[in-house]
Amino acid sequence: MAPSLRLSADRLFPADDRTRGIARALYREVSSLPIISPHGHTDPAWFASDAPFENASALLLQPDHYLFRMLYSQGIPLASLGIGAEGRDADPRAAWRLFAANYHLFRGTPSRMWLDWVFAEVFGLDVRLTGDTADLYFDTITEMLARPEFRPRALFERFNIEVLTTTESPLDTLEHHQAIRSSGWSGRVLTAYRPDPVVDPEFEGFQANLDRLSELTGEDCRTWQGYLAAHRQRRAFFASMGATSTDHGHPTAATADLPMPEAEALFADVAAGRATAAQAELFRAQMLTEMVGMSLEDGLVMQIHPGSFRNHNAQLFERFGRDKGADIPVATEYVRALHPLLSRYGNEAGLTVILFTLDETVYSRELAPLAGHYPALRLGPAWWFHDSPEGMRRFREHVTETAGFYNTVGFNDDTRAFLSIPARHDVARRIDCAFLARLVAEHRMEEDEAAEVAVDLAYNLPKKAYKL
Amino acid sequence: MAPSLRLSADRLFPADDRTRGIARALYREVSSLPIISPHGHTDPAWFASDAPFENASALLLQPDHYLFRMLYSQGIPLASLGIGAEGRDADPRAAWRLFAANYHLFRGTPSRMWLDWVFAEVFGLDVRLTGDTADLYFDTITEMLARPEFRPRALFERFNIEVLTTTESPLDTLEHHQAIRSSGWSGRVLTAYRPDPVVDPEFEGFQANLDRLSELTGEDCRTWQGYLAAHRQRRAFFASMGATSTDHGHPTAATADLPMPEAEALFADVAAGRATAAQAELFRAQMLTEMVGMSLEDGLVMQIHPGSFRNHNAQLFERFGRDKGADIPVATEYVRALHPLLSRYGNEAGLTVILFTLDETVYSRELAPLAGHYPALRLGPAWWFHDSPEGMRRFREHVTETAGFYNTVGFNDDTRAFLSIPARHDVARRIDCAFLARLVAEHRMEEDEAAEVAVDLAYNLPKKAYKL
Amino acid sequence: MAPSLRLSADRLFPADDRTRGIARALYREVSSLPIISPHGHTDPAWFASDAPFENASALLLQPDHYLFRMLYSQGIPLASLGIGAEGRDADPRAAWRLFAANYHLFRGTPSRMWLDWVFAEVFGLDVRLTGDTADLYFDTITEMLARPEFRPRALFERFNIEVLTTTESPLDTLEHHQAIRSSGWSGRVLTAYRPDPVVDPEFEGFQANLDRLSELTGEDCRTWQGYLAAHRQRRAFFASMGATSTDHGHPTAATADLPMPEAEALFADVAAGRATAAQAELFRAQMLTEMVGMSLEDGLVMQIHPGSFRNHNAQLFERFGRDKGADIPVATEYVRALHPLLSRYGNEAGLTVILFTLDETVYSRELAPLAGHYPALRLGPAWWFHDSPEGMRRFREHVTETAGFYNTVGFNDDTRAFLSIPARHDVARRIDCAFLARLVAEHRMEEDEAAEVAVDLAYNLPKKAYKL
Repeated sequence: MAPSLRLSADRLFPADDRTRGIARALYREVSSLPIISPHGHTDPAWFASDAPFENASALLLQPDHYLFRMLYSQGIPLASLGIGAEGRDADPRAAWRLFAANYHLFRGTPSRMWLDWVFAEVFGLDVRLTGDTADLYFDTITEMLARPEFRPRALFERFNIEVLTTTESPLDTLEHHQAIRSSGWSGRVLTAYRPDPVVDPEFEGFQANLDRLSELTGEDCRTWQGYLAAHRQRRAFFASMGATSTDHGHPTAATADLPMPEAEALFADVAAGRATAAQAELFRAQMLTEMVGMSLEDGLVMQIHPGSFRNHNAQLFERFGRDKGADIPVATEYVRALHPLLSRYGNEAGLTVILFTLDETVYSRELAPLAGHYPALRLGPAWWFHDSPEGMRRFREHVTETAGFYNTVGFNDDTRAFLSIPARHDVARRIDCAFLARLVAEHRMEEDEAAEVAVDLAYNLPKKAYKL
Repeated sequence: MAPSLRLSADRLFPADDRTRGIARALYREVSSLPIISPHGHTDPAWFASDAPFENASALLLQPDHYLFRMLYSQGIPLASLGIGAEGRDADPRAAWRLFAANYHLFRGTPSRMWLDWVFAEVFGLDVRLTGDTADLYFDTITEMLARPEFRPRALFERFNIEVLTTTESPLDTLEHHQAIRSSGWSGRVLTAYRPDPVVDPEFEGFQANLDRLSELTGEDCRTWQGYLAAHRQRRAFFASMGATSTDHGHPTAATADLPMPEAEALFADVAAGRATAAQAELFRAQMLTEMVGMSLEDGLVMQIHPGSFRNHNAQLFERFGRDKGADIPVATEYVRALHPLLSRYGNEAGLTVILFTLDETVYSRELAPLAGHYPALRLGPAWWFHDSPEGMRRFREHVTETAGFYNTVGFNDDTRAFLSIPARHDVARRIDCAFLARLVAEHRMEEDEAAEVAVDLAYNLPKKAYKL
Repeated sequence: MAPSLRLSADRLFPADDRTRGIARALYREVSSLPIISPHGHTDPAWFASDAPFENASALLLQPDHYLFRMLYSQGIPLASLGIGAEGRDADPRAAWRLFAANYHLFRGTPSRMWLDWVFAEVFGLDVRLTGDTADLYFDTITEMLARPEFRPRALFERFNIEVLTTTESPLDTLEHHQAIRSSGWSGRVLTAYRPDPVVDPEFEGFQANLDRLSELTGEDCRTWQGYLAAHRQRRAFFASMGATSTDHGHPTAATADLPMPEAEALFADVAAGRATAAQAELFRAQMLTEMVGMSLEDGLVMQIHPGSFRNHNAQLFERFGRDKGADIPVATEYVRALHPLLSRYGNEAGLTVILFTLDETVYSRELAPLAGHYPALRLGPAWWFHDSPEGMRRFREHVTETAGFYNTVGFNDDTRAFLSIPARHDVARRIDCAFLARLVAEHRMEEDEAAEVAVDLAYNLPKKAYKL
């Protein structure tokens, strides 16, 4: 008989009774607050078309690089999971069985927690996923997905999502967002401006992207002023479609503040496709500062997500493309890197620049001291590999004593896995309550204050920081 | 009605009853030991003149960069808090109200714990500081400060301070220390030799400082031998005024051990004001090794506090000057950096070099392995941003298994905030007891040994390491 | 009266009753499993000759750099402990007394836990080691060592060691391993191939080592092809003597994948003794990739142990030689460093490359993301200074959420201290059970799964990863 699947009401709360009792009480204050999802990667087409999701594998396995990277690490070919062109003909049920038979690999990972929540709460499953229950799962989930109450908009409402932000390139026409707005549906799905494809000279297709940007805007994006004007225009268009933020995923946190003629000369090399690697880095650095300048004008909140070595596995990239679990963090420096940007704009209290990191060593050494001083800075939550119980706990433990809670911005789910969104916010709320409960239990905070902070972290801070 | 202000007897002790009980027992052994404060930045003039402190803002807010950096990070102008020349005319009561209304920003920070201790224990306040109680606080504190029992010397005695060390430049005449000594007051206030202003070619006013050093000593500080002789002379003078230590706050931990002619040639460039940045770094590096050599002669204990990017906020520095909360830690390397110094002096068992860091990643990787081997090395406590419950806990957790307790030197408060000194030592004692209690509860140490270690950390080790 | 020495049945288990109860239950599943010791530095001569160990100091103190480095750090001369040529004439009893009188230095260190286990479990001592009990200890231990049941093979069996791996240079004739095999004794003692002396151009005696390698193999090790063939031959010989793994202790994790002519040209410089430091580094980097290629051919599992600054204390090295407690970790980068190797071989599911680190900051940032993706990679356990309760706990906390448990390989004791082997494995099992118990108590894992993982970590994973 398969073991049962149970979600404890006390999950993620510290084990000792004193702290657990406080954590429970704090959690009661936040467990049913609406979800603010200010940054993520869900597909707006889902909400535009409201078409049913296809099957368990297509919905839960194939878009989730957390899952297939782990399976791949243990020697399971990506194609057998239905990933990429090579996996085109893989049978979804066979792929699911392979996943199910290896579900033990996820013990102790956040994926396991998120998935178990989806299985139990969304699909009502009450036995554990194993090789033996693979078909039961596949059939149950696939059957349910055909029902109206499992369509994207219905789930959005069931999940109590107040606002959900997707991420698009300046080259995106935002047609799905247009469709959502004109559909009359009340769900609030916003976009965010992610200009990497037209800012990073090393991005695939950068030169063609510049051409496309010129086309879209009518600006000559081979001139520095035309290029900047095109950004301003697209930012305004994104803002008109509800965007309140931009996002920047650079290899490093480098910023620059070049005199205008130097910036112009640098762009000439970039636009001509003759930029060296060092020039590409300098250009990205300069563009971060330019983007902050535009944020001061148009009020868009700026997010910086640096420090990922993208597509580390060259063979895999060639066969399967981007976002296949082969992006690896590298050590990332912020203090010197952000100095040019902060020297120019750091004292602007009206500005919000939200910093993220994949390098946990900078939490207490660099990010908390910076955010605990500069008015323009806020700290994003534990990101990507660190969006996990231990990762979130470390974030609070390393950041709070220097930056406090009010220089942080609550939680980002940052996910493509739509069904996991409530699970992820629930984990974040539980971990924050657990952290606060420890402060209360150790008499470092009073319980009434902890309750106020818990609500701020879960709801008020993300709304305020992202102007939602 | 304002919430009450209560200090729990169990604060900072682990929540589970088994460990908490042990922590309480250990704490009873150390809670009333005298305070040894071997390194800090209080103003000796306070104890020389014994003049009353002015008001709540002048005493508690305006000198405390932990406080105003946090307020500034949330958009509150420094001038409105009475900071700097621009804040000269700020009303102290208005500044205090602003602070009080934003006291929630300090939730979860050590400042909050220290201040609540000061409010409750020093001033007997029993309601929480909020916007509503701002005036009550301001009036109560300001009124009390006028009483004799709140004068500096009375507080020093009430705080049970056995010895308090301040920090002065070689250019300081130590007149306040002279005054204290000749006053007949029994309080032991010592100085420490901090030569950065005449050692760091990039220090503000370095060239003028060299001139002043020549004047003070009668040595020609434009020659290498004269310069070194001037140091020797000032060190001897400081020692005669009770100093037992020196302190060095360099950007990095770099040391050098140049052949004499090279050192002399380097100094020629430095003294002529033509040193490049690389030469300045090399000169600071060489001077650390020179200072260790002098310590071998005169017995002064050496402290190295590296790794702060000083005055990161250029606009702020220009308007408000040094020490305004804009010093930010950077990654700091020790193993290669200290190699020249240790190759020469590391095996001297009679020498004490105390290492500090703002980069917690080096605790287990570099500092504990170094201090667990070299006879000349000891580790200073968690410093600055890390002088906090979580920071101190991490220090013990990362350092102890490799360096043990006896290569550490107990606690430094390192503060300008005189009233917080007992609170800071109390936090350190509680965290050490909590750490030891965990070791006992997990049967990693016997309780009689933990009690001995607790007393050593609180009292014996700092006295011994600093020769007090 | 001396305090008693007691080993609690609950040692290293979390203090709260809920978690402790789970940890006890998990530990019952693993406490009596046989010991798999897949990597270490015991001396095969012990098992070949089965001669009795000499006395307490010779067995427990003088070979253990964890012990004498700590004593040295507090000013105790190595010679007085009987270390090195200078300590040749030191009285073993006097050395032991010195150690005993300073046993408090080890409070809170893993050495203390290991030693107390050895004292209590192996020698039946029931009072604590102090200055007062030094002679009692010395006499008891020395007397027992003369008994047959304390000979190496008897202890090996008593310790329930299923397999023990030593580490030898390619220049080793493996005569002791030969002797063990031909002795008829059933104990399984294997070797591992550690080619640093003939791979690292900066190793002491490298040129002579090349000559010796030529002699041993009949290959011309001054030519690139001859040199590689010699490696293949020695690897095959080691494999024939039971080796299942190789081991590589480089200063960094750098790898290279040079075109053959460049590799050949580089080797020409290396073999001619004219390699620069940069060339030496590049050669080591190239050889890691070559060794992986050979592993693909002969199936030997590869271990990489980078990041130690060897012989940091030059004076000590000159007087006392290698391995005297003066190897210090340095920051170590893996993502860019391993890129050449992984680009070539990372996707080989049949390959096993086990990564170790002395830089804990890479656990969550680099190693877990790499091992959670590349089929060829696994993560070795917390190493050296981090082979400790806190170090092991941090390893699991930082690694598990991204790499899971099944990309790790269980425990390595990696020790020269034979008697401490069961104690070290016991600590590892207890810490893993404590970690798993926390996951169960916080409802992040079910207890049946935790029990399975505990057994896998203690027994199945090392057997599988090392092909034992």
